[in-house]
Amino acid sequence: MTLDVGVIGVGMIGQEHVRRLDGGPGGSRVVAIADADADRAATVAGQLPGAKALASGAELIASDAVDAVVVTSWGPTHEEFVLACLAAGKPVFCEKPLATTQAAGRRIVDAEVAAGRRLVQVGFNRRYDPAHRALKQAVDGGAIGAPLLVHCAHRNASVPAHYTRDMSIADTAIHEIDQLRWLLGQEITAAEVFTPRRSSRGGDLQDPLLVLFELADGVLADVEVSVNVHYGYEIRCEVSGETGTVELTDPAPVRIRRDGAVAGLVPADWRERFTLSYDVELREWVDTVAAGRAPQGPSSWDGYAAQVVSDAALQSLHVGGRVAVELGPRPDLYAPAG
Amino acid sequence: MTLDVGVIGVGMIGQEHVRRLDGGPGGSRVVAIADADADRAATVAGQLPGAKALASGAELIASDAVDAVVVTSWGPTHEEFVLACLAAGKPVFCEKPLATTQAAGRRIVDAEVAAGRRLVQVGFNRRYDPAHRALKQAVDGGAIGAPLLVHCAHRNASVPAHYTRDMSIADTAIHEIDQLRWLLGQEITAAEVFTPRRSSRGGDLQDPLLVLFELADGVLADVEVSVNVHYGYEIRCEVSGETGTVELTDPAPVRIRRDGAVAGLVPADWRERFTLSYDVELREWVDTVAAGRAPQGPSSWDGYAAQVVSDAALQSLHVGGRVAVELGPRPDLYAPAG
Amino acid sequence: MTLDVGVIGVGMIGQEHVRRLDGGPGGSRVVAIADADADRAATVAGQLPGAKALASGAELIASDAVDAVVVTSWGPTHEEFVLACLAAGKPVFCEKPLATTQAAGRRIVDAEVAAGRRLVQVGFNRRYDPAHRALKQAVDGGAIGAPLLVHCAHRNASVPAHYTRDMSIADTAIHEIDQLRWLLGQEITAAEVFTPRRSSRGGDLQDPLLVLFELADGVLADVEVSVNVHYGYEIRCEVSGETGTVELTDPAPVRIRRDGAVAGLVPADWRERFTLSYDVELREWVDTVAAGRAPQGPSSWDGYAAQVVSDAALQSLHVGGRVAVELGPRPDLYAPAG
Amino acid sequence: MTLDVGVIGVGMIGQEHVRRLDGGPGGSRVVAIADADADRAATVAGQLPGAKALASGAELIASDAVDAVVVTSWGPTHEEFVLACLAAGKPVFCEKPLATTQAAGRRIVDAEVAAGRRLVQVGFNRRYDPAHRALKQAVDGGAIGAPLLVHCAHRNASVPAHYTRDMSIADTAIHEIDQLRWLLGQEITAAEVFTPRRSSRGGDLQDPLLVLFELADGVLADVEVSVNVHYGYEIRCEVSGETGTVELTDPAPVRIRRDGAVAGLVPADWRERFTLSYDVELREWVDTVAAGRAPQGPSSWDGYAAQVVSDAALQSLHVGGRVAVELGPRPDLYAPAG
Repeated sequence: MTLDVGVIGVGMIGQEHVRRLDGGPGGSRVVAIADADADRAATVAGQLPGAKALASGAELIASDAVDAVVVTSWGPTHEEFVLACLAAGKPVFCEKPLATTQAAGRRIVDAEVAAGRRLVQVGFNRRYDPAHRALKQAVDGGAIGAPLLVHCAHRNASVPAHYTRDMSIADTAIHEIDQLRWLLGQEITAAEVFTPRRSSRGGDLQDPLLVLFELADGVLADVEVSVNVHYGYEIRCEVSGETGTVELTDPAPVRIRRDGAVAGLVPADWRERFTLSYDVELREWVDTVAAGRAPQGPSSWDGYAAQVVSDAALQSLHVGGRVAVELGPRPDLYAPAG
Repeated sequence: MTLDVGVIGVGMIGQEHVRRLDGGPGGSRVVAIADADADRAATVAGQLPGAKALASGAELIASDAVDAVVVTSWGPTHEEFVLACLAAGKPVFCEKPLATTQAAGRRIVDAEVAAGRRLVQVGFNRRYDPAHRALKQAVDGGAIGAPLLVHCAHRNASVPAHYTRDMSIADTAIHEIDQLRWLLGQEITAAEVFTPRRSSRGGDLQDPLLVLFELADGVLADVEVSVNVHYGYEIRCEVSGETGTVELTDPAPVRIRRDGAVAGLVPADWRERFTLSYDVELREWVDTVAAGRAPQGPSSWDGYAAQVVSDAALQSLHVGGRVAVELGPRPDLYAPAG
Repeated sequence: MTLDVGVIGVGMIGQEHVRRLDGGPGGSRVVAIADADADRAATVAGQLPGAKALASGAELIASDAVDAVVVTSWGPTHEEFVLACLAAGKPVFCEKPLATTQAAGRRIVDAEVAAGRRLVQVGFNRRYDPAHRALKQAVDGGAIGAPLLVHCAHRNASVPAHYTRDMSIADTAIHEIDQLRWLLGQEITAAEVFTPRRSSRGGDLQDPLLVLFELADGVLADVEVSVNVHYGYEIRCEVSGETGTVELTDPAPVRIRRDGAVAGLVPADWRERFTLSYDVELREWVDTVAAGRAPQGPSSWDGYAAQVVSDAALQSLHVGGRVAVELGPRPDLYAPAG
Repeated sequence: MTLDVGVIGVGMIGQEHVRRLDGGPGGSRVVAIADADADRAATVAGQLPGAKALASGAELIASDAVDAVVVTSWGPTHEEFVLACLAAGKPVFCEKPLATTQAAGRRIVDAEVAAGRRLVQVGFNRRYDPAHRALKQAVDGGAIGAPLLVHCAHRNASVPAHYTRDMSIADTAIHEIDQLRWLLGQEITAAEVFTPRRSSRGGDLQDPLLVLFELADGVLADVEVSVNVHYGYEIRCEVSGETGTVELTDPAPVRIRRDGAVAGLVPADWRERFTLSYDVELREWVDTVAAGRAPQGPSSWDGYAAQVVSDAALQSLHVGGRVAVELGPRPDLYAPAG
C-alpha cells in the first residue's frame, strides 16, 4: 500500500525529505505541501506529479488525501502541527526539536497519552546510522560488559555567523543527549558544562565546551562539543565497559599514501556523514506507518526528555555547576529509552 | 513518472531485486513476473499489489504493461531474453553474466550495435559500492599519479559443495575482471593463473588461485582468489601509482576491545558487504531509464569483454602459461571502459 | 668514559634497571648494590662481574667507587637517599615518586636549589616512549594549532588485592599528571575527580574514576582511570587543538584476520607496552651524566609538582568538588614544564 | 664478560655499528678498526677510548686483542674476511651480502662446515624487527592455519643515480628473499620476474618490478619492488593462510587530523623504519657470542641461499620466464630456514 504523505515546511531539510518520500522505498508519495512561504510550497509541489500546495499546515493535516504528515517547518511551529496531527489521529514525523520549550514538549506527551496510542516520531537520525547501530548492538549484546563511561566528541568544521553559545547545547549536543539515552537505555539525570580555553577561530563564541552527563545507573559521559575545528566533521564515541570497550571507527572508505603520510578523508559536514541515516530513518518510518503500526523510532517522550536535559545543560552553562534533570515519571505509553 | 518493470527469474537474487524495485526509489513498481517455475512466479506476484505472473519471459517482454525488464534468470537463458528486449526496444537490466559464452555475448553486442542505441545494462554491482567509487575517484583525480600495479584479494568464507575450480574464475574473479577494466579505464590484454599450495579446507578444489592480469598500458594486477578462508568475506584492493597508493579500508564500523585484542568484525558474506551497492545500482538504473536516457552502467561490451578475459584465464588455468586476450575493436556505441 | 653506577633497592624494577645499566649503552656499569634486604643485595651483586654489595644506601652514596646513583628502593626512603646524593654532589636517578609527601618533595627542591645545580632526575618514563614523543612533537610543531582539550585513558587489565582507591590517583594517574604538564608545557592548576558507576570486577574498589584537570592557560584534560578492564593494558591520549587533533595509535605491530574479526593484540601490561621507554630513559640519563652535564629529564620540580597535583586530586576524591593546585613559584633552576 | 670487537670497514653502516657496539648492551667494546681508507680508520678509532686502527682486515682478524669481528666493508671483500675469520676460529658478523657470487658463498659454507661449528652470522636485520617477529610468531603459532600465499611490497621513496635495475633484486628484494625463507621455514624453489608499466619517475630504470617466488611446499609469494614511490619508505607483508591472514600494520605512532584528513606519517627511509632492528640484532649477537655460544641469527647457509635465489630472479629479469633454484642439500650444520 502506498502511503500518501503531506509535508509541512519545505526549506532545505524539508525538500530533501520530499525527495526521499516521493516514490520512495516501501511505496510512499508526497501528495500535499504547505509552507509559510506559499510560493515555495507551490514551486515544490509543482515538481511532483501528484502533489498539491495547500494554504496552511492546518489545512494539510485536515486533508483526507493525507495519510501521514512530516513536519519540517520552523521549530517554534512544531507544537501546533504535532498537536493537530494528534487531534486528527494521523501519524506525524517531526524533525527535531519536537518543541522549543519543555512545557510544549510536555503538552505533546500529555496529548498523545490522552489519545492512548503513539502517533509521533521525532527526527533523531543518529539512531539510524549503521555505525551507531553497530555500537548499540555491541553494547546490548554484552561485548563489553556493563557500560561505565562514555567518551564522545561532536566536531564541526565551522558554524555560520549567527551560531550562538547556547546552540552548542540546544542544536549540537542535543544529538548526543538523545544518543546517550538510546545507547544506554536509561535517562540522563544531571548535566554539567565546563568551558575550556576558547578557540581563537570562533570569534567571541565560547568554543569548545566539555559537557558531563550522569545517567540513571551512574554511567558518566563526557562530550566534547567543538564547532570550529577546521579539519572536517567528526563524530566520536567510545563506550568503556567492565570487560571491554567499543568505539566508532573512522568512516573513510579508502586510505591514500602520498606525500609522507597515509591518510583517510574526513567528511566535510554532517550531510556527507549522515545522509544514509536519513534515508533509513524515513524508509523505516514509512514501512511502519504504511503497515498501520505505531512508529518505532524516537517518541514524544524522547523529544521531551532531550529538551529537559538540554535545558539543564544550558542552565549549567549559564550559571555553572551540576544541574539535576527532573523529568517526572515516564507514562506507560512509552517504552524505556533504548 | 513511475517505471513499470517486469522481472524474469525470481530466485533469491530476483526476489531481492523485486523488493528493491517495487515502490522503489525514483518511482518504480513491479508489474509482471515470469519464472521457469510458474508457481514461484505466482507466489511472488501474489505478494505485490500491482503485479501479474506471466507464462514466460517472452510474454513478459512483449507485454505493453512492461516499460523495462530485469533479467535474473538462470545464466544460460540470459542471451535469449536480452536479445528479445533489444528486438522489442525495451531497456533491460541483466544480472551477470551477460551470457555464458563469448559468442553469445558477441551476438548481444552486435544486435545492440545494429539497433543503434544502448538498451542493456549488466549487473556488475561493485561499481556502485561507495568504497570502490572512492577508490576510482582517487585514481582518476590524480591522488597517486599514474597507476602501475594493482593488488587485489577476493576471499569467501566458504563455497557450496557444487562449486568448481572454474567457478573461481568465471563466477568469482569475474568481479575483479570488470573492476580492473572500470577502475583503470582500459582493457585487459592477457591473463595468467598460478596455483599455489592448496588449502586443505576445500577438499579437492584447487583453492586458492593467484591470477595475474596485464592491462593495455602495461599495468599489472595480481588477484588472490580464495574461497574457503573461514574467517569471513573480504575484498581487498590497492592501486600502486607513481607517487602514491590508494587502498580499500576495512569496512568495520566499530572497533571492539576485549579479551586481549582490538578488533573489527569482518562481513560474513557478499550480501552483508555489498547490499548497499545493489540498492544504488538499481536506483540509478531506474532513474536513468525512467528519464528516457540510455543506461550509464556496465554495457553489453563490458559484459562481453569480461567473458573473453574470463575465458582467457580459464585457458591458463587448464593448460598453463600466459594467455592473450583478443577482443576485437570496440564499437563506437560504447565508451571506453571506466 | 664508563659511568660507575650504584643502585639502591633491587626489587623487581631495581633489578631491571641493573640489567639495563650494567654494560649498558654509552658505557655504564653497576659497581655497588644496596638493599634493605642484605641477602638480596648480595645475590644481585654476585651476578655482576664488577659489583659489591654495600651495607646501606648511605654507604653506597658515600663510596668513592660510585659516580652516580639510581634509587629504586621503597618510596618512603626516597627523600633520604636523594638528599644524601645532593649533599654528596652526585647525580641521582630516582624512580617515581620523588617523595611521598609534598613537604618531602619541597625539601628536595630546596636542597637542590641551594646546591645551585641540577643533580636529580625522576623516573617518569612515559616522556621517553617514542609514541608519546611523536605526540608532543606534533603538538609543539603546530600540527593541530593551540591545544584546547585533552582526552586520556589509563587502563590496567587488573590490579593486585592490596591496590586501594587512592592508588588510582597516586600511583596510576600520576603518569598522566606528569605527561600533561610535559606535553602542554605548563602547570596543572586544579583537579576534580568524578566517580562513575563502579565496576563489579574490582570488588569494593571505586573503579573507574574520571579526573578533570585544568591547565594554566585553560586547557581541560579528562582522564579515565580504569584498573580492572580485563582486556589488557591501554594508554590513550588525544589532544584536540584549534585546527586539528593528534592521538596515539594502537600499538599492535600486526593485524590478524580470523574467526570473523580483524584484530590487533593489546599489550598485557605496562611492562610489555613501555619496556623500550625505560631503555631509552636510562640510556639518555647515562649519556648525559657520563658527559658531565646536568640531567635533562624530569626534575625535582616535576616530581614535586606531580605530588602536589596528585594530592589535590586525592582531596577531590575524598571530599568532592574542584580543588585548586598551589605550587608556589618555580625556582629559576628549573625550566618550565615541557 | 666484555666482548672485544674489531670492525672492518667503517663507512656509514660500519660507523653506526661501531656506535652500537662500543660500550654497548651486554658489554661489548670496539678495540680495533680497519678500513681500506687508513685515515678513516684512524679517525674513527681516535673517537673511541680503547680502540686502535690497524693496517688491514687481515691484521685485525689475527690480532689477539680481538674476540670477534664485524665485517662492514665493501661487498666484494666479504669473502676474504669471512674466510679468514673461519680460519682463525673467530665469530664474525658479516653485513649482507655474505658474498657477491654463489661460488664465493658456497666456499664460505664449505669452510664453515669443514670447521665443524657455526661462526658466521649474516646481517639480515629484518628478522630482528619487532613487527616482523610478531608476524612470524602469528604464523608459527597457528593463528592463520597453514600459509598458502604471501603478498609483499618493498617501496623506497627514491634511489641514488647509480642504482641499477639489477639492484632492485640483488640489493632490495634480497631482504624479502631472506624474510620469506625465514618466515615460512623453507627454501625458495623458483623465481619469476614481471615488468609492469614503468614509472616515469625512475628515468630509464625498470621500476617497479613484480617478483613471484615459489616455496618448497607450494606457497606462492608476490613481491612488489618499487624504488621511486616518492611518498616514503614502506614495507608491507601479508600472509594468507587456510583459516586467516596476518599482516604488518602501519607503523605510525600517532594519528593526526587536520585539513580534511586523518593521517599517520610514513617513515622517510629504511633507517627511520629499521633502526631498532639493528640495535636488537647486534645486541643479540653480542650476547650470544660473548657467552661462547654459536650465533643464532642468519647463517652462511642463509646468505648463500639468498644469493642463489637472487641470481635466479636476476636470470628471470634478464631472459624472462620462471627460473628454478638449485641449492644442493643443506649441510647438517645448519638448521632449516626459520
